[in-house]
Amino acid sequence: MLRQSVHELEIATRGRGFYEFTSQLEKLVTGSGFKTGLATIHLQHTSASLLIQENADPDVRRDFETFFARLVPDGDPAFIHTAEGDDDMPAHVRTALTTVNLSIPIANGQLTLGTWQGVYLWEHRKIAHRRKVSVHLLGE
Amino acid sequence: MLRQSVHELEIATRGRGFYEFTSQLEKLVTGSGFKTGLATIHLQHTSASLLIQENADPDVRRDFETFFARLVPDGDPAFIHTAEGDDDMPAHVRTALTTVNLSIPIANGQLTLGTWQGVYLWEHRKIAHRRKVSVHLLGE
Amino acid sequence: MLRQSVHELEIATRGRGFYEFTSQLEKLVTGSGFKTGLATIHLQHTSASLLIQENADPDVRRDFETFFARLVPDGDPAFIHTAEGDDDMPAHVRTALTTVNLSIPIANGQLTLGTWQGVYLWEHRKIAHRRKVSVHLLGE
Repeated sequence: MLRQSVHELEIATRGRGFYEFTSQLEKLVTGSGFKTGLATIHLQHTSASLLIQENADPDVRRDFETFFARLVPDGDPAFIHTAEGDDDMPAHVRTALTTVNLSIPIANGQLTLGTWQGVYLWEHRKIAHRRKVSVHLLGE
Repeated sequence: MLRQSVHELEIATRGRGFYEFTSQLEKLVTGSGFKTGLATIHLQHTSASLLIQENADPDVRRDFETFFARLVPDGDPAFIHTAEGDDDMPAHVRTALTTVNLSIPIANGQLTLGTWQGVYLWEHRKIAHRRKVSVHLLGE
Repeated sequence: MLRQSVHELEIATRGRGFYEFTSQLEKLVTGSGFKTGLATIHLQHTSASLLIQENADPDVRRDFETFFARLVPDGDPAFIHTAEGDDDMPAHVRTALTTVNLSIPIANGQLTLGTWQGVYLWEHRKIAHRRKVSVHLLGE
């Protein structure tokens, strides 16, 4: 019979950059005992995002930062929401261009991630934050 | 025992801009009686999108419009799909750069949105539209 | 009573471009017998993405390629992750700007897609690939 559970993870960031938490998610899935099911991950913030991306070559994450720093530069004079710093509005835009929700089927007791897929929290603010992620697991 | 329900919301827009509908979603969740579960929201259109973003300072939405108007300008001469207006193809691109699906766990009888997170329909066409959103609720 | 199933689709691409697989998803939904439910689709790759977009005018897909080729050009000298080709890192960025997960409610035995919505795999690499998609169906 189908069952569900909800969990909360807290991820401490040290400022802008990628924080992989695939193994924490895998631990939750293993703990659930679900062989088949669905994992849904929601980040409860508006200036950091979730990203499934390559977890082999760290240059990929460096290039992501390069690209987004050029596309959504800090201190953009077009922005008026600047009270919290020159990286605040860019952080909101970076979040909107990526996502705060992920949904991953579970099969054979594991997330159906591809060989090169890792699940990252991408911190977009320059200073450290504690970020909350809610996780819903459904399965049997 | 787990139960589910599907709902349809209709959101009338007055043209390009943000339309928050967090409270309509919360009402559905409360009405379901689910203490724990999952809410999935799907927008049935290709020229408007869904966005979870800051709902405190309206300048954030203004800056979003500024950024996207610069990134995906109306009347871009590179576009050939222009029969429905100079904002039609830009509306498709803005939709692809954001999303039309959201998945939010439910805990303690409420969506696990962060303190500053609101759920918006972002209308990308300049004229008014009636937009349909399907909502799936799972829980117990 | 709620039931679930997990499926795997394989989509052969002939290089960069859009590959609609709406009908394959509809066939899975019909086969499940679910009248009401939820379909979740996950692409197991980091250089191709999923996109729900207009499936009427092919010019829309052409304009998407034009826009993304300009926004994330192949051979961008800012990228250092280039070992697999000048389209490799751009493919990762295009994937991050769109998505690899979709969640679509099912009602009346069908995906609640809008009239103009088709589900596409968007291949971002220039050469052909075999792409795997996992699909979770929940319903009754």
